[in-house]
Amino acid sequence: MESFGKNHQKELGDDLSPKPITLSKYSNRVELKTLLERSDRGAGLVGKRVVIGGWVKSSRAVKKDSPPPPPPPSVVGVPSPLSGGDQSHTTANIRCTEIIQSKMNIFRRFFDVLSGGGGKTYPIFDKTELAGQKTAPPPEYVFYFLISDGSSVSSLQVVVDSALSTVPATQLMDLGTCIVAEGVLRLPLAASTKHVIELEADKLLHVGTVDPEKYPLSKKQLPLHMLRDYSHFRPRTTTVGSVTRVHSALTLASHTFLQYHGFQYVQVPVITTTGFGEMFRVTTLLGKTDNEEEKKSVKEKDGFSIDTVKAAIKEKTRLIDHLKRSDSNREAVVAAVHDLKKTSDLASQLEMKQNSKSGTTLVKSEKLDFSKDFFGRDTYLTASGRFHLESYASALGKVYTLGPRFVADKIDNARHLAEMWNVETEVAFSELDDAMDCADEYFKFLCKYIIENRHEDMKFISKRVDKTITTRLEATASSSLLRFSYTEAISLLQKATARKFETKPEWGVALTTEHLSYLTDEIYKGPVIIHSYPKVAKPFYVRLNDDKKTVAAFDLVVPKVGVVITGSQNEERFEVLNARIGECGFTREKFEWYLDLRRHGTVKHSGISLSMEHMLLFATGLPDIKDAIPFPRSWGNANN
Amino acid sequence: MESFGKNHQKELGDDLSPKPITLSKYSNRVELKTLLERSDRGAGLVGKRVVIGGWVKSSRAVKKDSPPPPPPPSVVGVPSPLSGGDQSHTTANIRCTEIIQSKMNIFRRFFDVLSGGGGKTYPIFDKTELAGQKTAPPPEYVFYFLISDGSSVSSLQVVVDSALSTVPATQLMDLGTCIVAEGVLRLPLAASTKHVIELEADKLLHVGTVDPEKYPLSKKQLPLHMLRDYSHFRPRTTTVGSVTRVHSALTLASHTFLQYHGFQYVQVPVITTTGFGEMFRVTTLLGKTDNEEEKKSVKEKDGFSIDTVKAAIKEKTRLIDHLKRSDSNREAVVAAVHDLKKTSDLASQLEMKQNSKSGTTLVKSEKLDFSKDFFGRDTYLTASGRFHLESYASALGKVYTLGPRFVADKIDNARHLAEMWNVETEVAFSELDDAMDCADEYFKFLCKYIIENRHEDMKFISKRVDKTITTRLEATASSSLLRFSYTEAISLLQKATARKFETKPEWGVALTTEHLSYLTDEIYKGPVIIHSYPKVAKPFYVRLNDDKKTVAAFDLVVPKVGVVITGSQNEERFEVLNARIGECGFTREKFEWYLDLRRHGTVKHSGISLSMEHMLLFATGLPDIKDAIPFPRSWGNANN
Repeated sequence: MESFGKNHQKELGDDLSPKPITLSKYSNRVELKTLLERSDRGAGLVGKRVVIGGWVKSSRAVKKDSPPPPPPPSVVGVPSPLSGGDQSHTTANIRCTEIIQSKMNIFRRFFDVLSGGGGKTYPIFDKTELAGQKTAPPPEYVFYFLISDGSSVSSLQVVVDSALSTVPATQLMDLGTCIVAEGVLRLPLAASTKHVIELEADKLLHVGTVDPEKYPLSKKQLPLHMLRDYSHFRPRTTTVGSVTRVHSALTLASHTFLQYHGFQYVQVPVITTTGFGEMFRVTTLLGKTDNEEEKKSVKEKDGFSIDTVKAAIKEKTRLIDHLKRSDSNREAVVAAVHDLKKTSDLASQLEMKQNSKSGTTLVKSEKLDFSKDFFGRDTYLTASGRFHLESYASALGKVYTLGPRFVADKIDNARHLAEMWNVETEVAFSELDDAMDCADEYFKFLCKYIIENRHEDMKFISKRVDKTITTRLEATASSSLLRFSYTEAISLLQKATARKFETKPEWGVALTTEHLSYLTDEIYKGPVIIHSYPKVAKPFYVRLNDDKKTVAAFDLVVPKVGVVITGSQNEERFEVLNARIGECGFTREKFEWYLDLRRHGTVKHSGISLSMEHMLLFATGLPDIKDAIPFPRSWGNANN
Repeated sequence: MESFGKNHQKELGDDLSPKPITLSKYSNRVELKTLLERSDRGAGLVGKRVVIGGWVKSSRAVKKDSPPPPPPPSVVGVPSPLSGGDQSHTTANIRCTEIIQSKMNIFRRFFDVLSGGGGKTYPIFDKTELAGQKTAPPPEYVFYFLISDGSSVSSLQVVVDSALSTVPATQLMDLGTCIVAEGVLRLPLAASTKHVIELEADKLLHVGTVDPEKYPLSKKQLPLHMLRDYSHFRPRTTTVGSVTRVHSALTLASHTFLQYHGFQYVQVPVITTTGFGEMFRVTTLLGKTDNEEEKKSVKEKDGFSIDTVKAAIKEKTRLIDHLKRSDSNREAVVAAVHDLKKTSDLASQLEMKQNSKSGTTLVKSEKLDFSKDFFGRDTYLTASGRFHLESYASALGKVYTLGPRFVADKIDNARHLAEMWNVETEVAFSELDDAMDCADEYFKFLCKYIIENRHEDMKFISKRVDKTITTRLEATASSSLLRFSYTEAISLLQKATARKFETKPEWGVALTTEHLSYLTDEIYKGPVIIHSYPKVAKPFYVRLNDDKKTVAAFDLVVPKVGVVITGSQNEERFEVLNARIGECGFTREKFEWYLDLRRHGTVKHSGISLSMEHMLLFATGLPDIKDAIPFPRSWGNANN
């Protein structure tokens, strides 16, 4: 492994003159983006020596001296590199590499059984260590890999002679295998409309294999909801990769926009004593269930825990699925189903045992005294940073933050998460109109920013997720957002007599998803700002308007997604705020410090809160918020 | 209040031609930074009409037709604008405005008692509302305010004729009062070395008064540790304001540096099921102690709760302090002490009652079943984002995040918080050296960035906190950081025979604060990188070196502060990692998804973790981490 170290980088730096390719900083390879996202798509780099690294997106093996095959996806009759014999399973004229890829796992299963192979894995390819094991020369094939390194949507075709590898061919070819290769960039030998350059590898510096029977991804495009069970692997799919890069761009764009306009970033706390509604408690009183003891006690003598068994069930279900799809003989399927049944039974037994034990050792005493908790009092996860931001706005004028916000509502739908990340602002010497201006311009800046800075990703997302997305973002970025009051919204909804709403639109009701969808998807076909809500529809701290019925709050609502930004001018008048806290039945103690800001040097102020995940839904057209955050946490769901 | 709305901004925009002063975006005033941080310090703006807003830093009142007084801080014999009578308390020739300011509260106390005034407050100055109350013309004074709006270190002198205000003069003059004024910029009438321009106000658009007896800040520079009890007010002090602006710059610099070098921002979760060590549990099983019921039950008939009483004690203690310092008669002090005693007794009684009740209603059942908790399992607050980042690095190559990290260790010292914010990176195809390069360059970039972009703040911090800070940052930014191994560090320490260490430096012991301080403060007098620690000194996931004794981890250690960045190449070999988990006695289930990354397409990777708060300590010279974060959370301490 030493060969893929610092020295390479240095050698390469010398090789690449007169115009060396920029090496990836802090990483021993060239990022594919550098090679492929040039205006010439790499053509000017032919003849350059580079080290690249990435994960196999697709692979083909061609017998040496055969003509190079046409590029994927239209691969016909790829020969199995397994044994040169047993070709009976390689159905000719299959039009899709992904199927071949999936089937290959099963081929190997059969092959392993026939050959007595134990499915050995070589997680790391190490020339020195494996040198002694090289008993027979590898079969003579040329591999054509499509490799992606996540730096962009594009993949590079990498051509590898099987003689370079001591890892068995099947393992090399698996989807998801990590390959680091050194070689020279060249024009593709086979005419290709897709690739301008390819890499002819002359060294394989690293191979990180995959266990294809356990690896959840397949070349077949899996639906996003299926990928959610594998949140640690899904960024390897092109879609989730692109969404992540767009998310990253939105984050930088937010900091840039706000700091450019004079906002100071303030680190508001996540653990708080202030708040209301459904909150998560933070405590050390219950200790950690570092389930060592408990889990051990429910293990069977063969060492299987309930989690292992559940994993096995998932895996076996996948196998049956494969077998069914691959026209395997009925006997094999029946056997597999029987095996699954046995494992399921084991799971039930273990689960029963575990449930009967669970929780017994956790609470030592009936009384929990939170004054003895870590912070000496009740503490919760914050639901909003604006309380704390107000304190800094009353000193620094314009402030913002970006952090996680938590709501423990037992809701599980496509728009709700228990942990969401918000960008929040607070500006002193400002009113509702100013906050609406800020929301409007910030929102449009984000749209413009990703069109301009994530062009390739947005092109891919248009193709794969939502064809209209680029047009919609462009239209939004250049238009002026319509603003109207809640009262006007209600009257618009009431005019829609032909339309049956589940919640009848009457003044005073909260606007529901169907109301918002009607206004943005059907009437205005674009984002709008709705302001001046009834006071019951908004939190106690929003500034009461002169009519005493409405408050100075607004929502920026977009088609399909709903609310992306909320904003408000918060109550600066001590007496009014104090009365509102009383009206809502909250204990005043908790809000004393917040009231203090009105006692001493109070000022009109307003701010906004943008939900990063909802913004990402709007920016990508993704339908479910669980795909707009890397590791979603929702009711009943936290996997890692 | 309508007058300080949108229209002003528009009118002003027209007035300011040909070269209008940039208005603050989303805020109805000009930021003082725009006026004062020009190269001419505002001289070119004389004659311009502006609206400014901010909080009173100091104030003086001068009888009309007197010559304008020299500028602060050397104010001599300021006449009391209170009554024109009772001047016995205004000791002549006091050299410091802050003392006058503090004393004024006590003067008013006496005055209120004498005049029967109830200490009425007008939290909002509203011309229309107050018009009817204008019974007598206000006394004829000219006020000289120093106003700060937090946009920069500088303050603006604002001159206000008392005729403009309907708020009583004393209230207008209090430290911390919020003032929005419109007027014309002019050269100071009194020659001033400090101010190039001042504002002659012709309209007072808003006054947010202060209750000076309850307001914790004083013109006197309070020690930082005293300010910590008032984390919601302390950003109004110049020091905390400057520190916040430096913090903000460090945040933007981090995003800029990393994204420039191709890192993608990834939103790793705060709620996690993965981790080890002392962690905070996140749960909804215990409900919220929204202490309404409980607290009500311990209230006395006069409606005082324990918190109110405690606040009263604090306040009364302050009053006694004031009385003592202001040479009040002995009788007044004795009375105040007696009053305090009574309140303390009440507090004790209430506390006893509360303790006897506390906790009884919290746990309904003896068994807590965490499978019935919100997420259906045990969940904790994350201690590190690098686990989750590794998943994205194994797909996108180079990733980073910025988020809160939590450690529930019961430690309360100047270097430790329960909630800290880290910038973490993870890079695939990289090794320890790459991570050290990244730490080195990122760290130096941050130093350079704040020197260049927070010049005024750093100048103030140099003056107030640490005289050597700018020199140190400049030296660090331009030097190359020394790197040596843990083994070399131990041998250096062992050579210091004259030095007695509490922990004897022997190979295998963790380096303590005194060891690190010796190396950075005494030997190298600057930041160093120490790498290749014994495996017991670092977590299980750090890559084992070939010697099987050390691991591929490093710390970037700086003088006075200690570790600012930690980094490591994490174990990519499945078998080794799996064995290490076993060695450490952790349940494997919890780390299955993490092991998965080694099962499928593993690659060498490394990353770093920068503690933003420790970086800020280094950048500012502040001695305590509780002053390097807006709302510190530490053992036994979470106030808001």
